[in-house]
Amino acid sequence: MYTIDRTVDAPFDETVERTIDALAEEGFGVLADIDVQATFEAKLGESIDQYRILGACNPPLAFEALGEEPRLGTLLPCNVVVYETDDGQVGVSAIDPEEMLGIVGNAALDPIASEVRERFERVLDAVATASAATRAD
Amino acid sequence: MYTIDRTVDAPFDETVERTIDALAEEGFGVLADIDVQATFEAKLGESIDQYRILGACNPPLAFEALGEEPRLGTLLPCNVVVYETDDGQVGVSAIDPEEMLGIVGNAALDPIASEVRERFERVLDAVATASAATRAD
Repeated sequence: MYTIDRTVDAPFDETVERTIDALAEEGFGVLADIDVQATFEAKLGESIDQYRILGACNPPLAFEALGEEPRLGTLLPCNVVVYETDDGQVGVSAIDPEEMLGIVGNAALDPIASEVRERFERVLDAVATASAATRAD
Repeated sequence: MYTIDRTVDAPFDETVERTIDALAEEGFGVLADIDVQATFEAKLGESIDQYRILGACNPPLAFEALGEEPRLGTLLPCNVVVYETDDGQVGVSAIDPEEMLGIVGNAALDPIASEVRERFERVLDAVATASAATRAD
């Protein structure tokens, strides 16, 4: 498992907005926002379900991590993706930063990866909770 | 080693442009372009050397890879970073896609990762060659 995953029963665009809001609550700005569906349509003429890649960056943690590992930018920002699933729900998956940063082999990154992982867990829980609350209204 | 690296003796901005051009020659568009120096200055008031993250996507290869592994967007696009080094040169590092995709554990991705790796090697060689040619003028 290289991702942390939740599935919600909510509209796609709302879920993207909730994810961006929940990331902000945990100190992550979205530095990259890639519409994969639009990209494949434009570049290949291929049609896929909606799929967004949000590149999330917590500046203090990224600053600390790059200080420990200058080439770490090759693995930043940390992505959270939002996508339509085959059964009409919406998936939200975050990269597991502990798995991803494991390939670096620099123990100084371990506490930072754990911190990001904990925050991503809270982000996904917040998105799932907000979606459930709206359904209950 | 989780990256493929070259160091060039050339101006930073020229190296960024050469990298973008060389990526285009290998079929990669730049879907994300993050100025890390400007981000840290704006968000933290911290000053670092110039550092750019280029998120590179080859649409046909990305389309094939996502078809094999729907959550792979958490690891896309593949980054190439350009940064000033302490000794006044410019580093260009690409993520090693074989290392990065290794955490997924899906053998169907192996040939795609190898293909991206070969293309990234050619990209970095092209940047290094162009920089050396300009120096010799």
